[in-house]
Amino acid sequence: MTAVSAVKAALRTQAIETPSWAYGNSGTRFKVFAQPGVPRTPQEKLDDAARVHAHTGVAPTVALHIPWDKVEGADGYAELAKYAQERGLKLGAINSNVFQDDDYKLGSVTNPDPAVRRKALDHLLECVDIMDATGSRDLKLWFSDGTNYPGQDDIRARQDRLAEALAAVYERLGEGQRMLLEYKFFEPAFYATDVPDWGTAYAHCLKLGEKAQVVVDTGHHAPGTNIEFIVALLLREGKLGAFDFNSRFYADDDLMVGAADPFQLFRIMYEVVRGGGFTPDVAFMLDQCHNIEAKIPAIIRSVMNVQEATAKALLVDGEALAAAQSSGDVLAANAVLMDAYNTDVRPLLAEVREEMGIDPDPMAAYARSGWAEKIIDERVGGTQAGWGA
Amino acid sequence: MTAVSAVKAALRTQAIETPSWAYGNSGTRFKVFAQPGVPRTPQEKLDDAARVHAHTGVAPTVALHIPWDKVEGADGYAELAKYAQERGLKLGAINSNVFQDDDYKLGSVTNPDPAVRRKALDHLLECVDIMDATGSRDLKLWFSDGTNYPGQDDIRARQDRLAEALAAVYERLGEGQRMLLEYKFFEPAFYATDVPDWGTAYAHCLKLGEKAQVVVDTGHHAPGTNIEFIVALLLREGKLGAFDFNSRFYADDDLMVGAADPFQLFRIMYEVVRGGGFTPDVAFMLDQCHNIEAKIPAIIRSVMNVQEATAKALLVDGEALAAAQSSGDVLAANAVLMDAYNTDVRPLLAEVREEMGIDPDPMAAYARSGWAEKIIDERVGGTQAGWGA
Amino acid sequence: MTAVSAVKAALRTQAIETPSWAYGNSGTRFKVFAQPGVPRTPQEKLDDAARVHAHTGVAPTVALHIPWDKVEGADGYAELAKYAQERGLKLGAINSNVFQDDDYKLGSVTNPDPAVRRKALDHLLECVDIMDATGSRDLKLWFSDGTNYPGQDDIRARQDRLAEALAAVYERLGEGQRMLLEYKFFEPAFYATDVPDWGTAYAHCLKLGEKAQVVVDTGHHAPGTNIEFIVALLLREGKLGAFDFNSRFYADDDLMVGAADPFQLFRIMYEVVRGGGFTPDVAFMLDQCHNIEAKIPAIIRSVMNVQEATAKALLVDGEALAAAQSSGDVLAANAVLMDAYNTDVRPLLAEVREEMGIDPDPMAAYARSGWAEKIIDERVGGTQAGWGA
Amino acid sequence: MTAVSAVKAALRTQAIETPSWAYGNSGTRFKVFAQPGVPRTPQEKLDDAARVHAHTGVAPTVALHIPWDKVEGADGYAELAKYAQERGLKLGAINSNVFQDDDYKLGSVTNPDPAVRRKALDHLLECVDIMDATGSRDLKLWFSDGTNYPGQDDIRARQDRLAEALAAVYERLGEGQRMLLEYKFFEPAFYATDVPDWGTAYAHCLKLGEKAQVVVDTGHHAPGTNIEFIVALLLREGKLGAFDFNSRFYADDDLMVGAADPFQLFRIMYEVVRGGGFTPDVAFMLDQCHNIEAKIPAIIRSVMNVQEATAKALLVDGEALAAAQSSGDVLAANAVLMDAYNTDVRPLLAEVREEMGIDPDPMAAYARSGWAEKIIDERVGGTQAGWGA
Repeated sequence: MTAVSAVKAALRTQAIETPSWAYGNSGTRFKVFAQPGVPRTPQEKLDDAARVHAHTGVAPTVALHIPWDKVEGADGYAELAKYAQERGLKLGAINSNVFQDDDYKLGSVTNPDPAVRRKALDHLLECVDIMDATGSRDLKLWFSDGTNYPGQDDIRARQDRLAEALAAVYERLGEGQRMLLEYKFFEPAFYATDVPDWGTAYAHCLKLGEKAQVVVDTGHHAPGTNIEFIVALLLREGKLGAFDFNSRFYADDDLMVGAADPFQLFRIMYEVVRGGGFTPDVAFMLDQCHNIEAKIPAIIRSVMNVQEATAKALLVDGEALAAAQSSGDVLAANAVLMDAYNTDVRPLLAEVREEMGIDPDPMAAYARSGWAEKIIDERVGGTQAGWGA
Repeated sequence: MTAVSAVKAALRTQAIETPSWAYGNSGTRFKVFAQPGVPRTPQEKLDDAARVHAHTGVAPTVALHIPWDKVEGADGYAELAKYAQERGLKLGAINSNVFQDDDYKLGSVTNPDPAVRRKALDHLLECVDIMDATGSRDLKLWFSDGTNYPGQDDIRARQDRLAEALAAVYERLGEGQRMLLEYKFFEPAFYATDVPDWGTAYAHCLKLGEKAQVVVDTGHHAPGTNIEFIVALLLREGKLGAFDFNSRFYADDDLMVGAADPFQLFRIMYEVVRGGGFTPDVAFMLDQCHNIEAKIPAIIRSVMNVQEATAKALLVDGEALAAAQSSGDVLAANAVLMDAYNTDVRPLLAEVREEMGIDPDPMAAYARSGWAEKIIDERVGGTQAGWGA
Repeated sequence: MTAVSAVKAALRTQAIETPSWAYGNSGTRFKVFAQPGVPRTPQEKLDDAARVHAHTGVAPTVALHIPWDKVEGADGYAELAKYAQERGLKLGAINSNVFQDDDYKLGSVTNPDPAVRRKALDHLLECVDIMDATGSRDLKLWFSDGTNYPGQDDIRARQDRLAEALAAVYERLGEGQRMLLEYKFFEPAFYATDVPDWGTAYAHCLKLGEKAQVVVDTGHHAPGTNIEFIVALLLREGKLGAFDFNSRFYADDDLMVGAADPFQLFRIMYEVVRGGGFTPDVAFMLDQCHNIEAKIPAIIRSVMNVQEATAKALLVDGEALAAAQSSGDVLAANAVLMDAYNTDVRPLLAEVREEMGIDPDPMAAYARSGWAEKIIDERVGGTQAGWGA
Repeated sequence: MTAVSAVKAALRTQAIETPSWAYGNSGTRFKVFAQPGVPRTPQEKLDDAARVHAHTGVAPTVALHIPWDKVEGADGYAELAKYAQERGLKLGAINSNVFQDDDYKLGSVTNPDPAVRRKALDHLLECVDIMDATGSRDLKLWFSDGTNYPGQDDIRARQDRLAEALAAVYERLGEGQRMLLEYKFFEPAFYATDVPDWGTAYAHCLKLGEKAQVVVDTGHHAPGTNIEFIVALLLREGKLGAFDFNSRFYADDDLMVGAADPFQLFRIMYEVVRGGGFTPDVAFMLDQCHNIEAKIPAIIRSVMNVQEATAKALLVDGEALAAAQSSGDVLAANAVLMDAYNTDVRPLLAEVREEMGIDPDPMAAYARSGWAEKIIDERVGGTQAGWGA
């Protein structure tokens, strides 16, 4: 009883950040299929995000991406923050973009050309300015930098350039601000990616200091990689800053989190809980593409998938597990974990939602709300938001 | 001596088809970096292809992609064929495109909606009409069809729909025309691709008949797949119709062929030679993206890479190999293969080129030709060709 | 209600074959950790298998492996069959072994040496003799044949030799007997495996005829392979003969089925059910190694995992799924599948067991039975069964 | 000219350590194929290693593995060192073995049982004692520790235990002694390996201090991993201690180095040279299994493969490369690297050998030497050395 109450209490406090760009169009290199009703402005993205939060109760912040969410005017970002607040939201992490300018063809902060590096660094510093304006805590850095061909550039020199840029940005961070460094196995670089794995991100963050933390994007690993191991390790090192959640069968597929391997998501959440990572110091963010499915309900479903994995992780009987582990009973220990995983936590989460005063069935509630129809009707003309590739 | 003469003779007859789209812009889902001088029309693509053929002597045909290379008018394609001929080229395979219309979001010939399937089929049949006009032998079919989420659609029903469409197209093929079916492990479908492996393509082609053949795209396999094994098998079954050459470190990276794993390319070419596939019945095509490197020289380099791998494959001492193999001498047999691979065949190819009356160093000759500067100067304005995603 | 009754009825008829060798010792190339109480004879393996069947009710047959389960005497196998019958079991598939004789270093039926090929073929034919004696329906063929180094042997010649051997065995099959051909991505061959994928197995089985069927071992695929797609395809082609169940995170890990990716197992079982494969024509076999966990309970757990996946697959609301699929509602279709997967089917299976007159909790019942202690006490001395590597 | 002289001089100084165990029998979990003439004692292994050094001139040291090379007596190891010296060899790294005792079923230094951990630690400390006796500089630590099933043990607690053991061993190291920590993606652990990647090894070594360095085994990575990137990074961090060379197509295949992907080996050696790693501080060791090929010539061939890759790496025109890289000329930079790779360096190495006073063709010289026949004749009876799994 008490255990379940504690689980429910924890679930009520969960916060999952949704990314502004997931509300816009996305696709593959072959085709972006536009969807009707997609937002044209950062404000409309916030409107959609507010629906996700209204129906789930656990998605109170929205990550911005600069320049996709660039607003003009001296007080532009402050006004955007206010716009969010009026809808029950807060602005979350600021995501930089140093991969979509023609100058970045051979890299941004690791480019062999110092002028390009300076330009990229300026953008990163501008992002910290925006953080000051939005009150965001986290600067999320993902670099597409890398090379496509052996010999194209000097692997080590690129590390030196990277280190230099990171140090300059770190220096600029204010009180309470953090730098989150994301790694990615490959794509768009196809030979050597400059931050390809957690080890590289960790090595850089370690040198920078406490405000530099590693981001684990669940789609950014080599085939077969044990992600929960990395989670456990980074928590042990005090270097896990955030998650970018999504799921994959092959590469960086960016499918809905929990859709491809729900058991893996559960194992990750178990290590988070076990390692003390279920705190505001570890940001839980979505980073997904809804290329063919309706975007808002896909995001609601994704939030629910994280909740279900979290609920199961919280339900693991820690004492029984520790006893089985220390006695070397492989099957018993595995069974304790599987017991939690095999539990149908949907009724529990329905209760949590009712206790939070929201509909126990977010998907149905959203469908009934008429929002989907409303935005299709109203958002006519203009340019739909998208990745802008 | 005689052996080397035979190798040279074979190399002089080699024909490598270049794809019209490789001359245009391409990129990843994150960014297409436009390059100056890129063609605006199918004719300009042919102009560029003519340079590749002029400098290599072994790239006499150009694959078209419909609608990217669509031309208007009753005699449009005949005129395009004439345009090619005047530049020493012929039009090659016709590549269909049933992945870039909004209707194809959930598939083309395997779409659950019969109206969409009909539309896709109509396009495929139109491609055969174009073959009639261009005199092309081969219709190359690649389907992006598949699903992103478990349950999204019925895997088996999609196979039934695929079989139906293929049969209709096969029926339409004329004398001397072939259907080449390409498989791909994943992308843009991220859960189940409808033609994901050679087995699926083979099973369909087998039922269709002799005119249906499998295409091996060297970038379309699961990690670790032994591609030369598939080549040997398809040749044994009489079902290898063509190659789409490119190279990869990770997924379908579409790098220059031979750039990522030249030893693999050699092994593939060895199986081609050994299995009797070095004939016009097996088409050697490039299918690559030159996202960050200059396109024409990248294509020249790619052609040269295929030539070098072919030369090495032809140099394998078949008798010594067979003797070592049949005696079970693992190291000796491996050494025979490696001897050929470790040979520097660039001098041999330089001789072949001189005997063909072209410059022994195609890269340098192209650089000196001024073509790169000329097209940058002249191709100003208009819309650069690209994938049109 | 009726639906649930049908599900239960189906579950009661399920039959999962356990392999005799899973009761013996196994390990990796680094170490075989012997376990106390492991059987010393085929009879003792049957004793253990009888416990698995007693506690699960759905494991009525046991696969044999020759020569690991070789028995002497004119009536040896008939007596073994009788021994099984007295314990409520039947003998199942006969598994050949042409990988553990020194002569097979460079292959068995594909060896360059005709004398070795003949020896291997003789063994395979002997296995059919044993099938006659045991009354087994299925001959399961797995070939470790392949090469470690490029050039080591001729890929195509090995296919010819393989085809020849398979034809000779096929010819020998009696009425009601089948040949099941297993494929494996790699190991112990590390360059080219002679039957590496379903396509190769399918191509051979197709030429042989109806009695030749493909075995899907769930651990024998390249990383990322969509196994349920292969299942759907083989069922469509009438060529799925059996499963070898186990699970993996990396390669052919041979962990307990359902342990690594229970969602994948569910998707596979869904395609089995949807494709009409839930019949005796498709044999459900375990093929696992319990290197570090207690063997009998691990096998019980594995059987239960297959049951749970099957139950969930049977619970999928086919009508709702078809409706969502044909309307192109990606999220709704996925949700129908996930609803079944997220259901906790353990209570349902407990009921099924009670209806079958067995303990609803097989693991607890086995633990209480004292069998584990008994075999540790009694099976002292002699040579424990193992793979014999 | 001078450049080539420098390359030759460098090649003459190269030192490649061969592992004692490669001279003994090895295999897969399916079968160890014994070979005639295989050593029965550490001394006979040294005899074989002396032949490799005699024919290559660059294999002067031999790694030992404890207990496989355990010798008895107070001065056992000193005598073994003398035995080596008399044959022109020195004893190299000491490799510990904490994976083949029944106690290590659930791990060695990370085992949940403190008694097992203590036993494992004692072995590691004993290995340092042996180093004192042999005069070895390096202690190479590979841990098979890990888990097969989710939940089996606590990932983080195992890291704590690992750190504790490493610290105790580090403490024990004498002047001039080093600890080399090896990582491995998987096998024999199939769920979570305790040191699965370079990041984990690096994090531990960093905390331990300067004497702790990372070992890169070229077969121990996830599919697609860019190994030369890791090499460049570790050199930049001053943490690359050694290589375990071998090659692979799939997993830890342990084939002859350079056999599977000679271009990768070249890229690795290029990063070694470029990053200043071509010094005695980075140990170049082989760690391979010659399961089906003759062992001594396979080791000679492997040494030659490393030499050829090194020669090509040394031949890269650094100035031309830097110029192309800094100008952003992708194709030119790639071409500089490929020019070196495509060079046939076998004549150069033949010259190097002649300058060193040895036969220019080591394989032929060994074949002529009669050693293979001699050991087959003489090494009769006794127990052949092997992994002892």
